[in-house]
Amino acid sequence: MKILYVFAHPEPRSLNGALRDVALAELQAQGHQVQVSDLYAMGWKAEVDRSDFPAWDADRPLAVVPASKEGYAAQSLTPDVQAEIDKLLWADVLILQFPLWWFAMPAMLKGWVDRVFAYGFAYGVGEHSERRWGDRYGEGRLAGKRAMLVVTVGGWREHYAPRGVNGPIEDLLFPIHHGVLYYPGYEILPPFLAFRSDRFDEAAFAAAADELRGRLRTLQSTPPIPFRPQNSGDYEIPAMQLRAGLERPGASGFGLHLAPPRDGVAPRPPASAATVEA
Amino acid sequence: MKILYVFAHPEPRSLNGALRDVALAELQAQGHQVQVSDLYAMGWKAEVDRSDFPAWDADRPLAVVPASKEGYAAQSLTPDVQAEIDKLLWADVLILQFPLWWFAMPAMLKGWVDRVFAYGFAYGVGEHSERRWGDRYGEGRLAGKRAMLVVTVGGWREHYAPRGVNGPIEDLLFPIHHGVLYYPGYEILPPFLAFRSDRFDEAAFAAAADELRGRLRTLQSTPPIPFRPQNSGDYEIPAMQLRAGLERPGASGFGLHLAPPRDGVAPRPPASAATVEA
Repeated sequence: MKILYVFAHPEPRSLNGALRDVALAELQAQGHQVQVSDLYAMGWKAEVDRSDFPAWDADRPLAVVPASKEGYAAQSLTPDVQAEIDKLLWADVLILQFPLWWFAMPAMLKGWVDRVFAYGFAYGVGEHSERRWGDRYGEGRLAGKRAMLVVTVGGWREHYAPRGVNGPIEDLLFPIHHGVLYYPGYEILPPFLAFRSDRFDEAAFAAAADELRGRLRTLQSTPPIPFRPQNSGDYEIPAMQLRAGLERPGASGFGLHLAPPRDGVAPRPPASAATVEA
Repeated sequence: MKILYVFAHPEPRSLNGALRDVALAELQAQGHQVQVSDLYAMGWKAEVDRSDFPAWDADRPLAVVPASKEGYAAQSLTPDVQAEIDKLLWADVLILQFPLWWFAMPAMLKGWVDRVFAYGFAYGVGEHSERRWGDRYGEGRLAGKRAMLVVTVGGWREHYAPRGVNGPIEDLLFPIHHGVLYYPGYEILPPFLAFRSDRFDEAAFAAAADELRGRLRTLQSTPPIPFRPQNSGDYEIPAMQLRAGLERPGASGFGLHLAPPRDGVAPRPPASAATVEA
């Protein structure tokens, strides 16, 4: 397969750098073609601003959505952004690796999303009508591809459990899984998570590396998180509300958007598959 | 009161710029002292990297948490970061204004959080023991202060409703409200939200401006979102799990961390107070 590995950590000689090296070695051993976007090493520009839209009239107030739409349509986005779009179209699998900082992506990676996920490419795609609300949430230009997060977390796994004080990790990652990646069409694999990342010793690293290699050997066979497709009848259009009675018993909040088991096969719950704690 | 207004949009001649101007005029009319951090205008550096820690040995691999701890303790963080820390300590109220991009803050604002919320200042504060797990979630250096988000959202309000396809807006904002702001001690006011921000006409703007002014007149009296304090008995320590039976009927996910009404007074539900739609 073709794999795009996006890495967002400032220090290669870190736990994140070591896990990345494990991942890249394993992917190469499997014979995959791999491209790496090492955002810090590339000097990636994180913030969206006027310079992202060279064709936008200098006297015109910057309107980001129209500027993104025009720039993508005219292929006048900047070369760094266009190169990432080309990599996303090339790859069968996207892997994003980052440390969880303040319960979200580092700014560097958020800026990769903000700049690369252009209108007409990652959003604003497809027919908007009484029948369809665009090609998104399971449809879109990146449909048929898979994505997975590799995340280090400073805190304890228990603190991110269903009743943990930080909130459940799968809910904290929902805006990325569902909002950033499922939106333009990716199937989302359960994340690889390494908790207590500041306390890793040799044994913990060996266990995490084994777990990560295992996950990378099953990219094609791991069942994705069963998010509901938008245009398949589960949601009223255009209000885009989940129809009554479709949810799993007791589900609320983000959990509403997970489909119940089908054909008697229980889907793997998100974030349960590969979690490692030092 | 003393107000810090952090603004994260690249275009002053925008809906965001116009709402900011409304807000600043109202705050000044009320006689508040206001400092503004206009991140784009300041040329704020969004990404955390080695240059943030000038005292960190150049040969030593960068470890962000220890570097932040040492830098804050030694007052050797960079002057731009130190200036924002001083503003946060000075202000009674923090207002963060931004467009919701990919269901989260723009990279520019995330980078303000990543860099300014230093170890020893915004996290890693207080005693960690069998009895207390640090001063966080309602305690911490910023306790006694209030914070409020002013957010523009491109989509429809219904799509962010409890059953909406994007997920409930109060859950999407939970990582910011609870994870970024309640964590170092702020009380969190319900957000001001302007939906369908790309479709604003004059009437919609006038209504939004009125609503925003109203919210700014009641910064002191608006009841905060009733997040649960960490060290008051609601959570087991050190597992930091919510004790059984404390939740509102039917609550799950992030909603577990809201305290039920006390003394017969129903708390205002999050995100319901001021929402404007074009």
